[in-house]
Order: sequence, then C-alpha cells, then structure tokens
Amino acid sequence: MKKAFVMSYVGTGLHGWQRQKNAPTVQQYMEDAIFKLCGRETYVSGCGRTDAGVHAAYYVASAQLDTNIPDASLPAALNAHLPEQIAVRRAVTVPDDFDARFSCRKKAYTYVIRNSRVRDPFDLSRAYFYPVPLDEKKMAEAARHIVGTHDFAAFKSEGTEVKSTVRTVYECEVTRSGEYVRIRVSADGFLYNMVRTIAGTLIYVGVSKLEPSDVIKILEDGDRKAAGPCAPACGLYLTELCYGSEELDGRADR
Amino acid sequence: MKKAFVMSYVGTGLHGWQRQKNAPTVQQYMEDAIFKLCGRETYVSGCGRTDAGVHAAYYVASAQLDTNIPDASLPAALNAHLPEQIAVRRAVTVPDDFDARFSCRKKAYTYVIRNSRVRDPFDLSRAYFYPVPLDEKKMAEAARHIVGTHDFAAFKSEGTEVKSTVRTVYECEVTRSGEYVRIRVSADGFLYNMVRTIAGTLIYVGVSKLEPSDVIKILEDGDRKAAGPCAPACGLYLTELCYGSEELDGRADR
Repeated sequence: MKKAFVMSYVGTGLHGWQRQKNAPTVQQYMEDAIFKLCGRETYVSGCGRTDAGVHAAYYVASAQLDTNIPDASLPAALNAHLPEQIAVRRAVTVPDDFDARFSCRKKAYTYVIRNSRVRDPFDLSRAYFYPVPLDEKKMAEAARHIVGTHDFAAFKSEGTEVKSTVRTVYECEVTRSGEYVRIRVSADGFLYNMVRTIAGTLIYVGVSKLEPSDVIKILEDGDRKAAGPCAPACGLYLTELCYGSEELDGRADR
Repeated sequence: MKKAFVMSYVGTGLHGWQRQKNAPTVQQYMEDAIFKLCGRETYVSGCGRTDAGVHAAYYVASAQLDTNIPDASLPAALNAHLPEQIAVRRAVTVPDDFDARFSCRKKAYTYVIRNSRVRDPFDLSRAYFYPVPLDEKKMAEAARHIVGTHDFAAFKSEGTEVKSTVRTVYECEVTRSGEYVRIRVSADGFLYNMVRTIAGTLIYVGVSKLEPSDVIKILEDGDRKAAGPCAPACGLYLTELCYGSEELDGRADR
C-alpha cells in the first residue's frame, strides 16, 4: 500500500532531505525507521530536497509500505524510531501512483529574519539574525517583481543540473511583525538555493544596496552575480504544500 | 558603577544560573565575559537561581563594573564574549545598593506544555510534551487554590535550606491555546522546584489523578508525597520581573 506522511523537522545538524554518504539526512532516518518497523528496505520519496540546516514546518513524504498498522497508529510507531528533531504527524493511504515529489503542485517557503540590534537566544538556528534595520516596504515592492513566470537563472546556485530555469512564482510577500521580517514565496517549483537567493536579494533592497526596480533587470539578465547573496539556511522553512488533496494539503506558519 | 543587565537565555545544556565546579552556568559565563571585557574578577548577582535546563525569557543580573563603555554599547560588547544561547539585551546604570536578587519584588514563571498526541520537533527542549489530553478547566480551578499566602512545603524539593517555606502567590493561571497549555505563576519568591511541582500537581488534576479541591489539603498538610511530580525543566521559563523600575521591569511571554 502506498502511504503518504505529513512530517516536520528541525534542520539543524541534518544534511537536508536527500540520502548522502556519511552525513545524517531525513530520508535516511525515515528509510531506517521503516526498515526497523517493517523489516524491508524501502525507498522514501520526499516533496523536495531541503538543504543542510533548512527546516520543514510542513513536509510530505511517500513510500510503498507492507504493514498492517493502521494509519492512525503509524505516526507513533515511526516516531519511536526517529530522532527527536524529526516527527511524522499524520499517515494517509494514497493511490499507488501518488508520489510526494511528482504529485506536488505548489510549495511555499518562509524565510524568517530577526531584524533587531540584539540577538534572541531562542532564535538560535531558527531565524537569520540581521541587526541592520531593514526597510520592509522597499523589500515588499521588490518582491512584487519576483511574482510571475520568469527565468530564475540569476537566483540559482551552481550544483544541480536542471532542464529549465523557468519557474512560476505565485506569491512573494514581505511582512514585518515587530522585530521579525518574513519573506514568503510560493511557486510551482524552486531552483537550488532559489528562496535563499531571493531572501539575500530582498535584504540588499532592504538596506538600499539594490533598488526594487533592479530586480527586474536581474531577472532579465539572468546574472547570478548581480543578485544578492544566498541567505543562511537557518532562516528557511518549508511551510506549505498543495497536492489538491484535503488530507495532504496544509500550511504551518513560522 | 553598578550596572543591571536585562538578559535572556536558553537553558538547554546549561546547569542553571549559579556558578558550579565543572559545569557550565550562566553566572560563570557572565563573570568570564566581564573579565574579558574589563580585566577584573567581578561577582555577578542574578535575580534567581534557575535549575539546569530551565529557560529565562526575561532575566536581570547586576554587577559593580569599572568601564567607560556606555550602557547602549555594553550589550554588544558582552554578547561578543557570551555563548550564543545567552544574550544581554539591555544595560542600565543603577544605584549602588541595587541588587538583582534582593531588589526583586515579584517574579513570574510560565510552564509550557505541548498537549497533543504528536510531538512537534520545534518544541524539543522548549516545552514539555504531554500526549494525554488535559482538562485545562479543572487545572484552572485547582490553580485558584494556589493563589494567596501559604506554606508551600508540599511544593518544594529537598536540597536547599530555607528559613521559611511561606510564600505569597499573586497569580496562578492555566490557559489553553490550541495544542499548548500554559501555567503562569507569579509570586514574591519561589522555593526550590516550586513551579515545576505546581505544574506536576496541576497536570495530575488535568488527568483526574487529583481533584482541584485536593490542592487545599496538600497545602494544609505540607506533604510533598501528596503533591504531583516535579515536571521536567524544559517546559519552564522565567518570564517576568518587577523591581518597581520602568527600565528593569518587563515581561517576555512564551
């Protein structure tokens, strides 16, 4: 039976989702937990690769599972074999052709910046501490240029080969709540480091190293060097997924 | 010059406030940071001893400091020498007879319980995960009996000798917000493990191992064994202090 798992994990100390040699990853922990539970090697598909240190407030994985454990009991059964920073919150039986990665229609990430002169220990590894005052109105103006179908070559790090660097961004919003500035980006898909590079670019706009209209030219030129830096992983959260399924769609704001 | 420092710290991995042999404590880190900054051994007084693993969302310390660094620059100067889980947020010049411990009139702690079938990795070491459903209305009823001037001998762990076990609790409130139950207790002072034992007792009321009226008898009898267990440190936060000073009084809810 095909199962989908709604999960969340704290990315600190993990090397992202995808199984690697000699580095702890969420995929490996999930496959190991399923092996301990079902006694069988099982490939677990994830809705996306997250980078080392990136968090998932809302994540969906899927796997072919041979088990009589009812869906309601699967989370506790798997959590017993998972490290405390990874949790399965819900298990759902899905059609055999469901795949956490390929069935996903829309994803959203939230980048959290603590924008205050003084750091907050409770945000350690959970937000990017940026002490220079940010102009969130200018950032929001720049963010509006990100929305739409564009070639995001300028907002991609070297590393993974992709057929196309064209993506459709549905929303790109910048909001301030007290000492926190949040950047929320939803799209049909993301390039490697795309959200972190959008965040780094919007931060440059927030301190006037770039102007909002510069974003238009950066997109047009596709020049990675013209965009801002890749912001640190600790501020990034996968927060929303859409599969067109009531049981699997969800949002967990941070 | 006497200085007061408004601070916060994540208690995880720390052995509380008070300096100990061979164990990292906040007092030691503060005294070491001041030594690095001013080149002189300095005693730092803290508003209270917190136990190992207990957090301080709002904490005040004080020390006699010989420095020309202005108050506005002291937090950053000290933070440069402190581990990331401890932060000085504000420095204030205070009268010479000010002492963070003895000048404190009122303190409040908040005990945070994640009351849900499934754990949340983001709460790891930050809340007490308690999966059995709690009846927060019964807990709130029991909490009302805690308010007032009582002998809290039944709510004290062995360990430190005190002249009197009588304390005045000003507020003891239980509130639920979704999957979180919070217990907030303010008092003129607290005995060793007092809030954690109140939390453990109220949790027993929340699962009907005790009735709200039992709290009256437990207080009267002063029998530690009749009260509930000492709840884990990870759920406890020092959240409010009152010195009768606009610059030092504050509250940081969790």
